Order: sequence, then C-alpha cells, then structure tokens
Amino acid sequence: MRHDATPAQVADIVQQIEQHGMKSHLSSGEERTVIGVIGTNPFQLKDLFVEAPGVAEVIPITKPYKLSNREFRPHDTHIRVGGVDVGSNQVWVVAGPCSIENAEMFLESARGVKAAGGHALRGGAFKPRTSPYSFQGLRHDGLSILKAVRAETGLPIVSEVLSEADLDAVADVADVIQIGARNMQNFSLLSEVGQLRRPVLLKRGMSSTIEEWLLSAEYILSQGNYDVILCERGIRTFEPYTRNTLDLNAVPLIRELSHLPVIVDPSHGTGRRSLVIAMALAAVASGAHGVIVEVHPHPEAALSDGAQSLTLDGFRTLMQQLRPVAEAVGRTLA
Amino acid sequence: MRHDATPAQVADIVQQIEQHGMKSHLSSGEERTVIGVIGTNPFQLKDLFVEAPGVAEVIPITKPYKLSNREFRPHDTHIRVGGVDVGSNQVWVVAGPCSIENAEMFLESARGVKAAGGHALRGGAFKPRTSPYSFQGLRHDGLSILKAVRAETGLPIVSEVLSEADLDAVADVADVIQIGARNMQNFSLLSEVGQLRRPVLLKRGMSSTIEEWLLSAEYILSQGNYDVILCERGIRTFEPYTRNTLDLNAVPLIRELSHLPVIVDPSHGTGRRSLVIAMALAAVASGAHGVIVEVHPHPEAALSDGAQSLTLDGFRTLMQQLRPVAEAVGRTLA
Amino acid sequence: MRHDATPAQVADIVQQIEQHGMKSHLSSGEERTVIGVIGTNPFQLKDLFVEAPGVAEVIPITKPYKLSNREFRPHDTHIRVGGVDVGSNQVWVVAGPCSIENAEMFLESARGVKAAGGHALRGGAFKPRTSPYSFQGLRHDGLSILKAVRAETGLPIVSEVLSEADLDAVADVADVIQIGARNMQNFSLLSEVGQLRRPVLLKRGMSSTIEEWLLSAEYILSQGNYDVILCERGIRTFEPYTRNTLDLNAVPLIRELSHLPVIVDPSHGTGRRSLVIAMALAAVASGAHGVIVEVHPHPEAALSDGAQSLTLDGFRTLMQQLRPVAEAVGRTLA
Amino acid sequence: MRHDATPAQVADIVQQIEQHGMKSHLSSGEERTVIGVIGTNPFQLKDLFVEAPGVAEVIPITKPYKLSNREFRPHDTHIRVGGVDVGSNQVWVVAGPCSIENAEMFLESARGVKAAGGHALRGGAFKPRTSPYSFQGLRHDGLSILKAVRAETGLPIVSEVLSEADLDAVADVADVIQIGARNMQNFSLLSEVGQLRRPVLLKRGMSSTIEEWLLSAEYILSQGNYDVILCERGIRTFEPYTRNTLDLNAVPLIRELSHLPVIVDPSHGTGRRSLVIAMALAAVASGAHGVIVEVHPHPEAALSDGAQSLTLDGFRTLMQQLRPVAEAVGRTLA
Repeated sequence: MRHDATPAQVADIVQQIEQHGMKSHLSSGEERTVIGVIGTNPFQLKDLFVEAPGVAEVIPITKPYKLSNREFRPHDTHIRVGGVDVGSNQVWVVAGPCSIENAEMFLESARGVKAAGGHALRGGAFKPRTSPYSFQGLRHDGLSILKAVRAETGLPIVSEVLSEADLDAVADVADVIQIGARNMQNFSLLSEVGQLRRPVLLKRGMSSTIEEWLLSAEYILSQGNYDVILCERGIRTFEPYTRNTLDLNAVPLIRELSHLPVIVDPSHGTGRRSLVIAMALAAVASGAHGVIVEVHPHPEAALSDGAQSLTLDGFRTLMQQLRPVAEAVGRTLA
Repeated sequence: MRHDATPAQVADIVQQIEQHGMKSHLSSGEERTVIGVIGTNPFQLKDLFVEAPGVAEVIPITKPYKLSNREFRPHDTHIRVGGVDVGSNQVWVVAGPCSIENAEMFLESARGVKAAGGHALRGGAFKPRTSPYSFQGLRHDGLSILKAVRAETGLPIVSEVLSEADLDAVADVADVIQIGARNMQNFSLLSEVGQLRRPVLLKRGMSSTIEEWLLSAEYILSQGNYDVILCERGIRTFEPYTRNTLDLNAVPLIRELSHLPVIVDPSHGTGRRSLVIAMALAAVASGAHGVIVEVHPHPEAALSDGAQSLTLDGFRTLMQQLRPVAEAVGRTLA
Repeated sequence: MRHDATPAQVADIVQQIEQHGMKSHLSSGEERTVIGVIGTNPFQLKDLFVEAPGVAEVIPITKPYKLSNREFRPHDTHIRVGGVDVGSNQVWVVAGPCSIENAEMFLESARGVKAAGGHALRGGAFKPRTSPYSFQGLRHDGLSILKAVRAETGLPIVSEVLSEADLDAVADVADVIQIGARNMQNFSLLSEVGQLRRPVLLKRGMSSTIEEWLLSAEYILSQGNYDVILCERGIRTFEPYTRNTLDLNAVPLIRELSHLPVIVDPSHGTGRRSLVIAMALAAVASGAHGVIVEVHPHPEAALSDGAQSLTLDGFRTLMQQLRPVAEAVGRTLA
Repeated sequence: MRHDATPAQVADIVQQIEQHGMKSHLSSGEERTVIGVIGTNPFQLKDLFVEAPGVAEVIPITKPYKLSNREFRPHDTHIRVGGVDVGSNQVWVVAGPCSIENAEMFLESARGVKAAGGHALRGGAFKPRTSPYSFQGLRHDGLSILKAVRAETGLPIVSEVLSEADLDAVADVADVIQIGARNMQNFSLLSEVGQLRRPVLLKRGMSSTIEEWLLSAEYILSQGNYDVILCERGIRTFEPYTRNTLDLNAVPLIRELSHLPVIVDPSHGTGRRSLVIAMALAAVASGAHGVIVEVHPHPEAALSDGAQSLTLDGFRTLMQQLRPVAEAVGRTLA
C-alpha cells in the first residue's frame, strides 16, 4: 500500500481479496503496510488491484515461501520474549538442560543461567528419543516443574512439543514452543501451532534444505502465527568426530532470504562440549540473533546429551566471551 | 524356551517377567518360542531365569533395537496382506498414483494395476507436501474413494496417515497404514500406530541411518504391533540429477540385521520415470520382498509426482520384466 | 554426416574444422559417421557447415560433456578386453585381491578367479592409502608379479596408476589402467592417460556428481583415448554400517546420458563381504555392463580390505548366481 | 626428552632409532625436545628407551596421524610467511583473484589487496577445472606474472600446483604452495611437496573427514616438511543454495586435535559473494588462524568464480570489520 493509504483503503482491499476467495496477511511496518495475498494467479491480482485506491505496487513473489520471504516484509521481524526483542540487534541467549530430570536440578540450572545473564530457559518435558527404551522425559510432571521454576526465576521458558495431543499443555507453560528437528516436516503439528498466538522456535531438520525449512515456517505463518524463530542445529554429514555439522552458512543466507529471526544451537550442532563456545562466538559473528545452549550443573550425570552440555562455569565463560564479539559486529548483549 | 517347553512353563515365565516390572514380547515360531524381555539389566535376567523350567537360553541383545533384531527372531517375519505373505519368497507389488485426484482416475489406475498383476493399491488421501500452498490431498473425500475402489476391485489398500487425529479414519479403509519418510521420527504417531493391530509400512527417513530406522520400527513393535514392513525410498545426497539416491545396500543389510520384511520404492528413490524399472529389477535382485511404484494413467497431468510415475503401459512392462528376475533369485511373482 | 557421405567429404570437413582452429573427434558407426567438434560457438558452426557436401545435420550438444554424451554417439561403446566386449550385452567380471601381497597369493587368486569363470584380474601394485604409514603396495615388484601371472594365466590385468611418473610402467603390464576414486579429479593424470591408447577404468570420486564424473571421462576422451569404462564404487553418506553407499541409480542414469560402458564395484561400495553378492546381482539387474569384486584366498590375513573380500568359494557362488540374473535381463555371462 | 637432556643425548637416541630401522622426527620446542618415532611397535620402543639417558617419557600416539597430532607437539606450530607468523595470534589474510587472467588485472588486484592491508596474494596459474573445455589458467605465463607482481608489491604468493611435473616451476615463484581440494588425496603429489622445504597450504577435500585431512597432512610431514597450513573450504552437502557448506566446526576441532595452523576460505565455502564477509568474521571468531578470500577488481568479468569474488571495495570492508572481531577473541590483525 502507499505510505498515505488510509485504514479504510487497507480494509477495503482486504475485503476484496477475501471476496475473490483468496487469503490475506497484513504486515504493518513503520513505513508502510503490506498485504500478502495467497492463492491466486499473480497476473489476475495485478489486473484487480494495480489501480485500486491506496495501492502502491503489486509485486509477485516467485519463491515458493511467501510470508517468510524478505520480499514480502523487508524489515527484520522482532519477537518479544521476556525482556528481549528477538530479531533485533540484541543477542538472545537461551540456556538450560536437555531434559528436566528433577525439580532440584532444574532449579539449580535455572538459577545458574539467570546469574550468568541468560535470557530464557530451555528444558524438555517431552523428549524425542531415537530409541523407545531411552528416557522419554518427565512429561506432564516436567511441565509442572517448568511452571514452578518459571514463577520462581521469572525466566521465560522454551520447551518442545512432540504431539498435537500435548500442545495445549505445553502452551500453558512455555513462552516459546519448540518444534524439534525430527518434526520439522510434521505438517499436521505445524498447522496446529500456526493456530496459536505464541512464538514458535522451529529447528531445522537434520537434512533439510534452506528452502524446505522456510516452507515449514510458512506452514505456521500461513495459519496466522507470524512469530517464528528459526534455529540452525546442525545437519547430517559423513563426519564421525562430531554429532552433526553446524551449518553457519545458513545464518547469513536466512537473513538474506527472510525477515524471520534465526538463532543457533551449537550444542546439538557439534555434540562436543569443547566446541560449543567457539561455535557460539562464530554464530554471533555470522549474524545470528541468538544462541541456545545446553547447560547442566553435572553433565557427567545427565540423563541425555551430557557430552555436549556446558557446566554452569562453562556457561559463565561463554557469556563473558560473547559480549565483546557481539559488540564487534554491532550488536548488544544485555 | 526349550523345544519341549509346555505352554504352562511359558505362561509362568511371562508372569514372572511382569512381576519384576519388565515387559515381555512373545514370538512363537515353528521350532521354538522366544520371549523378548525389555527393561532390565541382562545380568539380572540371567540370574533369574537361566535355571527356570522350560528355559533353554538367556541371550542378551546388545544392539539397541531388540524386537526388530534377527537375534530375537531368527526367521523372517511374514505379514499377510490380501493374498500375499509379505516377507516370504513371494514378491509383493504395490502400485498406484501418488495422490487420489478424483474417483474416475483412481478407479482407472486400480483396474490397470490389477489387470497387470499388481497385488495392492497405493494412493494418498492425506499428502505431506513441502509447501502449504501445494495440493494437500482430497483428505476425507479421498478415503471414501479408497473405500469404494477397494470394494470394487478387491485390491488391498496402502495409504498414508499424517496425524494422530486422522488415524482411525485411515485405519478404517487401509489394509496397510503408511508412515511417510517425513514422519519416520514422529515418535508420537509411531506409538499410536503401535497400538493398532494393522500392518504398517514404515518408510525410511531421508537421511536416516539404518539403526535409526530399525529403532523407529521398534517404537511400533514395542507397543505390541509386530507387523511392520520397512520401505527404502531413497536418501538425500548431493546429486542433482535424481530426486533422491535409492540406497539398495539397505536391503541386504536390513535382511541381515532384522527379521522384518523390506520393500523398495524406486519412484521416490529416483524421481525419474526412466530409471524406475531398472531400479525395481535391481531391488528384487538385491533381495527386497517387494516394490511399491507410482503409476498414473496420465502422468503428464498428475497433481503430484508426475515425473516419476509410470504409465499403465510402463507398469505392465515392469511386471513382465520383474518375473524372470524374481525367479533368477529364487523368488516367485504370483 | 549423411549415410552416403564419402571418405573424401568427411576428410574435407575435418580439414575445415581444423583450419578454423577447432578440434575434431571422429566416430565411425555402422550406420553413419559423426564428427564431434570442440571449441566453438554452435551457431557459427551451423553457418559454416549446414550446407556443406555430405553433412546431414549440425547438432549442438548443450550438456558440458560432449564426447561422452549419448547425443554425440547414440550407440553403446564396446571396448574389447581379452575375449569380452565390455559395453555389449556380455557381462564382464573382474576379480582379484585388493593389493598384490606376494607372488604365491596372487597366482593362487588368479587361478581361482579363472577357474570360476572370471574374465579379468584386478590387483594393485601401487595402493592409494589414507595413511602414509599403511602398506603402500609392492610397487614395481608388484608390476613384475602382475606380468608373470598375466603370462601364466592369460587373464587380462586391471591395475591402478597413482602418478604420472609410474604411468609407463603400469601401462606396460596392464590391459586396463585404473584411475581410482581419489584421483578422479587429478586432471593432470587424466590428461596423461588420455594420451595413451589403452582402455581406462575410471572410478567415480566418493562425492562426485554424475556430471563431474562424465567430465572427468571427457578429460580422457578429449585427448583422443575413447576407451573409458566408468566404475561406480559407492559414494560417501552419513551411514556408519557400510563403508560407502553403493549408488546403483548411477547405472541406468549413466546409460541414459552416455554411451560409455559402466560397471560396478560392490566390494568398495559396501565394505562388507556379506553384502557383496546381493549388490553384484542388483548391479547387473540395474543394467551394469559388469562387476569388479575383491577376492582373496585368505581374507582374514589380507594386508588391505580383508573385510570386504570374497573368498574363492564366495566368488564361485557369485558366478553361479550371476548367470541367471544376467539372462533374466537379456544379457549373457560367458 | 628431559628438560636437561644434552644435544649429545638427543643425537644418541636419534642414532639408535635409525639403527633399529625406524624413522625419527625432531621437534625442538622452547621447553623440551620431542623425538617422534614412526614405524615400530610402541611396546618395543618403551623397552628400548624408557631408561635411556636424557629420556623423560615414551608416549604412544594411538591416533593414526602422528606428527600432526597435538599429543606429539603440544604447542601451536607457527609458520613464517612474509611478515606474519601463521598459527600465532596474528590473523593472516590472503586475497586475490581465482585465476591470473592477465598482468594488468593481477597487478590491480595485488595493489588493492596490499592497500587494504592484506598480507599475501593468492592467484592461480594452473587451474583445476571440472571440464576440460573451461579456461585452464595461463600456466607458465601465469607464473611469470606472479613473479613480476611479487617483485613489484612485495606480497608473498600462494599458488596452486596440479602436477608433479610443474612442482619446481611453481615452487620457484610461490612462497606457499597450495594443494587444492581435488588433490587432497593425490598421495604422490603430497609426497613430492613433502620433499620441499616450503610451506604448503593443504585444502580439505570436498567430502573428506577431519581424520583423512590430517592423514593427508601427515603424508607431507612424514617426508620432513613440517610447514603445513590446513585450509577449510566447504564440504559437499545436499544444499543447492550454496556451492559448498563451509564447515566451521572443523576449526576448533582441528585446533583441539592438531598443532597445525588452520585457515578458512569463505569464497569457495559458500560460493556467494553476499555471504563471504559474514563467514570470514565467523571463521575468525571460531578460532581460525586466517582467511583466504577471492577478490577481483571486476568480478562480473572474471573468467572463473566471479559470483563468489569480493570487489576491492568489498575487501576493504572485510578488513575493517575483521579487526574488531579479531580483537574480541584476543587476536591481532596487523
């Protein structure tokens, strides 16, 4: 729409779009309002609207991802989580144990994360495990612990959902709902979280292309939930030394193609504690909007992912080293 | 158990296992009965049962997949679908269009498949599409068409389920429930189909290792549904000429490691019609228990996967060429 | 050229091509002669020759591989090695140990291969080893053994060259010169073997695309050596159970894109003896012109690749099982 | 050896090693001298030397790479190139065009690189091209240009060698000899450069594991040339948006496993100009000892790799942004 388009003009265009059986998505920026239209032939759209009052331009988006495309929304999307605008020049740091093992350990982790300056707490109540015989998480008991620790520390919670059946329960305690790598193309679950109005952390599938990842985000956005944070967590390659190969190319590439925030998980991305800090620094230097790391007070006794978890001391070191790197690339770490 | 173990002795051992809080899985073969025990320390188990009446041996299975392991069940599992014992020396051929587009096309496909000697019909009512803007299948209308065509032709149906919410509806019409590659690690859906007593076709994830695939099967088996057919459908590599890289190594490897039947999908595995027949022949020569191929009466007009679908003529050619190859490796094609 | 083009017309066109500073490659088939032209703008070529006497058509080849392209030469290339036309409907079987360890073992292997019906003998004198501290082959002593065993058994020899410096020595004893996977893009070595008039077995690089592989063949062809046999030997993927992932898709794909013969190495392709026979059968069913397998009289004592070598008994079994599969796909195994 | 071991004691041990038919490699650090021994059973070695005069400890190295192993040499190796100690806390920046196209362009590039603060000049006279029909470099004429520009600007030269036959000519002008990704396992060429006493830049093969890469370095080191600089340049994955996937995990991993310097090539590693600066910053943040980037005065007219080359302006921006990141991780950029 034109800079001077009136709300009535915007509403009128939206109404006409719906009358033609198409779907509209409104993006109101500071400078102008953009109306995304899905479900039509771009030439037909041009004919209909190019002369309509208030319309500045009709631009077809040729890439298959539309709403997540930077052409649709030129400015970075900011998503408020606790005190941080994720997607802005503030670096967002999420930390915590892989899974919630018991209330004491989780509270100890949370206090350590908070004391060191972490902004949000990660912790899984429902765990996607390769084997049915591995620890599957405390499930609903884990959610209760999350709720209590959130109340106690004030830290926002990032937690994973595995099943549509558990979605309401997870959404009840999590500030950010995580979709894990194995469910990146569980389209049915994506559509369900698209119905919510709660930020979603969408991890990249372990052999997903960038375009597939953006199209999975599109499943959520197209349902009206625009608050998607992308998370690079390593891809699968032939290298046996590391659990995965953290793909930092994805960071500047996503920032070029999309307006959505992108953060990095160097813990899963490498699978080795000794590499986590170096790769977290590299992630921020490459332009990531944040990092999410596994921290455990006693990694050697962890029920899952001990080998890749930082100790609380290690996390403090990370925070200290992260600040100058953030500042060196024009970012801040509050 | 010993060859001469009595049913009462078997029942007694099972009862003791349950009393110790472990889970038992019974496999009664022609020669002997095996009791799989999950959830214990193998040394403890040896102490408890090695001297018990009727027990022949206590063998720990060291691989993480237990029930799908050939050590647990030395003979090939046979799964009856229509007139074919899948997993036996009969080659099982499943064919049909990628998605059900309308009743006429689907019935035409079904008749062509049946006339050429296909044993079962594939067809998706719910389609997992990379983009939310692509055709998602006829959904419940598609299931009605499946039901009618099954009644009309007598062909058993293989159809995919994407969501726990649709499971009952799919199970109502499908003789074999398909879990697609993108949901291979949707553990919540795997557990649900494990509750059914209906054969499951479990496709390999696109960058899944063999062990992860068997562990996904284990999610189903450990819930008591032992009728899992594995399906190799191509892995993701760096090659741009083909959609995927069909990994036939997986066939003899699965047959070495597991007792479960394994079939091959050369349509998704290559993504090019011109390669499908050659790779189907190779699949059977490598030891596959069957093939599943996409067939469309008019591939050029298909709503999905047209480039990799055989015509009905092409399918007849495949059937003709498959028989001598099957016989050359000691198999039959009814 | 036209069917009735005279030798003088052909010679005249070739001369004109050279005068314009381009390079010509002559392919005289039964039905017609084709002149490949490298190094020009296709439109200029059309202007020059479309009306010239004897010329039937001027066809630009848009793919970057020109001389290996089936568009340049529609019929399969046959390459005579010993008594077999490699590339014809005869299945070519090459077998032998990974490396020549001593004269006795190599002679024992050769006799076993010959007795079981193998057509040619493989054996490395120069071995490309990942570590400088591993056995590097008997080198020139190995070549002497090769020469003696060739004389004794009459079997043609396939042997690898690692360095331009050794090329003459290897060419002195080998009927077919092998370029290994690690040297597939050693362009300097490729150009050198292109100068020879001796068949070359060009293994696929371990993460080479099909197009890169054909372009490496093109390095040899463009120097005037047209006798290149391609060999698929497994690509590198994420799977830890197998050493490589044998990519049989490559077989029908190469046969579609190129006229060059393509054979398969299931020994390196899988790295596990128990998978070799199944994958050799699959290779022939997929359309391969032959197989090359590692055979060792005492694999458990082999200095290299013991785990993937067939015993002599195993090789006899392979030959017995290969014949019916070859016949099932319209091929012969002499 | 002990801290107080005398030169005579060291010489005596070396002599004994040689007498036993083993090979010795001397590493004289500030604190102590280490004698690397190759080619023996570690237990035998212990028996021979553990009590010998001047010997402090006999430590077996279990990893297959011995001389490149940090266990052999605990301190980082520094390699002097021009005014920079590569491997120290100075960040080394190498820049220049992919190939030398003509004297003017190359001199313009060199002056731009020098003016912006680059430390060394890259430029290929011999180019490894996938197709035989692509520009192969100016070859010996290119070397003459390199020599002249080196004299004119004083910048050290990094240039690739493709063939043993050209090695002397390249070594005559290059301060650092580059082995490209395609030749990483050209063991014959590696052994030859191992004979020189000139630093070698060893690029990682495009699907090489970390261990294979270190073993290729070992081929050079074991010939007595200890000055090897490793260069990560992207691995091959399934992602089509980028030419390669730059694997920065390799940087902290190499620094953990080896004492050799490791630098990063974000130009080949991404293949897209718009990603080069972000990934160069990330490389230094991850701990890389330097970067090597493609710079071209007129990338749109480049004969090779134009899409991934920075302009001279872009290179100046990189240098400006690199300094604060280097300082943020405790490094310097002179």
